[in-house]
Amino acid sequence: MNKIVLICPERNDVSKWVESFKKENNNIEVEIYPNDTDREQTEFVATWNPPADAFEKFPNLKVIASMAAGVKHITSKKIPNNVKVTRVKDDYLNYDLSYFVLNALLNYLRDMPLYFQHQEEKIWDRQAYQRPEDVTVGILGFGNIGQAIGKLLLKNDFKVLGWSRSKKDVEGIETFKEDELNTFLSKSNVLVCMLPHTPETEDILNQELFQELPKGTYLINVGRGAHLQEEDFLEALANGQLSGAALDVFKTEPLPKEHVFWNHDKITITPHTASITNPATIVPKMVENFQRMQNNEPLKDEVDLEKGY
Amino acid sequence: MNKIVLICPERNDVSKWVESFKKENNNIEVEIYPNDTDREQTEFVATWNPPADAFEKFPNLKVIASMAAGVKHITSKKIPNNVKVTRVKDDYLNYDLSYFVLNALLNYLRDMPLYFQHQEEKIWDRQAYQRPEDVTVGILGFGNIGQAIGKLLLKNDFKVLGWSRSKKDVEGIETFKEDELNTFLSKSNVLVCMLPHTPETEDILNQELFQELPKGTYLINVGRGAHLQEEDFLEALANGQLSGAALDVFKTEPLPKEHVFWNHDKITITPHTASITNPATIVPKMVENFQRMQNNEPLKDEVDLEKGY
Ligand SMILES: NC(=O)c1ccc[n+]([C@@H]2O[C@H](COP(=O)([O-])OP(=O)(O)OC[C@H]3O[C@@H](n4cnc5c(N)ncnc54)[C@H](OP(=O)(O)O)[C@@H]3O)[C@@H](O)[C@H]2O)c1
Ligand SMILES: NC(=O)c1ccc[n+]([C@@H]2O[C@H](COP(=O)([O-])OP(=O)(O)OC[C@H]3O[C@@H](n4cnc5c(N)ncnc54)[C@H](OP(=O)(O)O)[C@@H]3O)[C@@H](O)[C@H]2O)c1
Repeated sequence: MNKIVLICPERNDVSKWVESFKKENNNIEVEIYPNDTDREQTEFVATWNPPADAFEKFPNLKVIASMAAGVKHITSKKIPNNVKVTRVKDDYLNYDLSYFVLNALLNYLRDMPLYFQHQEEKIWDRQAYQRPEDVTVGILGFGNIGQAIGKLLLKNDFKVLGWSRSKKDVEGIETFKEDELNTFLSKSNVLVCMLPHTPETEDILNQELFQELPKGTYLINVGRGAHLQEEDFLEALANGQLSGAALDVFKTEPLPKEHVFWNHDKITITPHTASITNPATIVPKMVENFQRMQNNEPLKDEVDLEKGY
Repeated sequence: MNKIVLICPERNDVSKWVESFKKENNNIEVEIYPNDTDREQTEFVATWNPPADAFEKFPNLKVIASMAAGVKHITSKKIPNNVKVTRVKDDYLNYDLSYFVLNALLNYLRDMPLYFQHQEEKIWDRQAYQRPEDVTVGILGFGNIGQAIGKLLLKNDFKVLGWSRSKKDVEGIETFKEDELNTFLSKSNVLVCMLPHTPETEDILNQELFQELPKGTYLINVGRGAHLQEEDFLEALANGQLSGAALDVFKTEPLPKEHVFWNHDKITITPHTASITNPATIVPKMVENFQRMQNNEPLKDEVDLEKGY
């Protein structure tokens, strides 16, 4: 049957998704869980943060498509045997995240958080600044998005390092593989975390890692809140091992009002806004995978469930 | 005589200048006004904001070197006949101003001033954002620095327009000359003012100009405070003709505590920090001009006193 079910209880932009599917292929019926029908007929679902028991309600499920780049929201649930998971790769996702990181970097080099504070207090006080050419940015997680970020930073004169499980080859960028983490860290003045959330990467931004960085390194976390060990992080800010941080992702989102991050003067907070998913460019790829599934062809952007990303 | 006199009563970094001269050419004596000696012997002065009567005290003055890119602080004083004025052109000045403008642009596209405010109020509220590729930036004053800014913005996917007295030819950038101002304005989503301060450009950012812009244009002023007609500007912010502004320069600096700009939520203020002059790279060019003067050779980076820049 030509049907895709959307399982995204928290999404309030679901109509945009439905529209995009209609526009891309009017023959595909789109239903919204839990009001969908004929579950035996459903082979393909697209989801963001599904309820824990959602998948098992589809006895003939073949493909779960993540509505985002991350898939922890899926892999943390029970995935029925032989069901495949795909995720988003999108040029605009790369584009938006890259400019977000460039912006965070320039704000750091220019002390913009301090100037915003000074403006409120009507303080006129020029700060020395750093130049991109004098700053080395290490990117933790040098995959699809990490490499796009690296290329934009390189074009803007930063020195760029990339760290990933397997060694990468990108012109102008010094790359490091899994067991070269400490060398990578020791050379980074700014650390950008762009890792996926897996058992291996959870709490990876911890005291042990921070102590391998040059003193005063700046942190930009655009991966997941789960990467950050919060007590170690606050301690590293307090003792100067980290000079500050820009955080876009948090263990609990929205960040609770009582959280100490909000009023910390070395932390810049954005509400998970580095990139906002764009159904118009993502849906065509889902439809392509839907048709590949129907034709028994290999899927695109499939997740390696062993690795978890 | 091998002597240069520094006339910069407000500068507190004068020792850096003296050091740089010493490093560049140990045979040149550097004296600080008003404690300098043998004024008949002095042919070359370097200055920032000199007292009105300073120059006439040097009966044999030949060259006044501005310690900055702007020269209004000199041209607004009486310049003795046949004395030449030079000004700073410096790759680092271009570099720093370009990244400053890029940063101001990205902050605007991403609503960063609002996020800084939201952080203080512990508000989690995602905003839609704009992409560089969808934004056209018009640069008023497309000379030495303006062109450097344009090239960096072009590399970062912005559409770029340049306006100057005479038509310029820069690849990838649509340029406009003096009498094409209104066409230029009508195409700009962001306006960057990088003009010199002259009688023609004073108060150029006024109601008449604003009304030629598309509604909601954003303003970045890195030229001089004298370019901005403040009442017209506040009115344009109030009626939405301008959506906001980043201001680095002001009619009076430091910006007085009682000025309404400080607490205006559509204005971002930085304390004239887009670029901080760097004696180490500027002094060698002054020394070169000093020697050119001694050898009766044409000076570099000479100011056209007719035009005023
Ligand atoms: N803040 C936001 O708005 C936002 C938006 C989109 C995505 N994200 C996050 O960004 C993550 C990355 O997305 P992506 O598309 O770039 O994924 P990707 O292409 O799969 O890249 C992941 C990278 O991390 C590396 N990696 C994974 N586990 C590792 C480990 N244990 N040790 C060392 N390296 C490891 C991978 O190495 P190999 O290449 O060797 O496998 C790869 O280079 C997503 O999972 C999501 O959580 C955040
Ligand atoms: N915020 C800061 O920290 C900072 C730092 C440095 C400089 N500045 C300011 O920036 C100014 C520009 O520096 P620059 O080195 O780029 O100077 P520049 O090379 O002389 O460029 C000035 C540009 O403005 C154009 N222009 C001048 N008067 C004009 C008019 N009446 N109508 C149209 N176009 C006009 C010129 O046109 P033509 O090319 O046709 O002559 C030229 O393109 C300085 O004078 C200074 O005030 C600010």
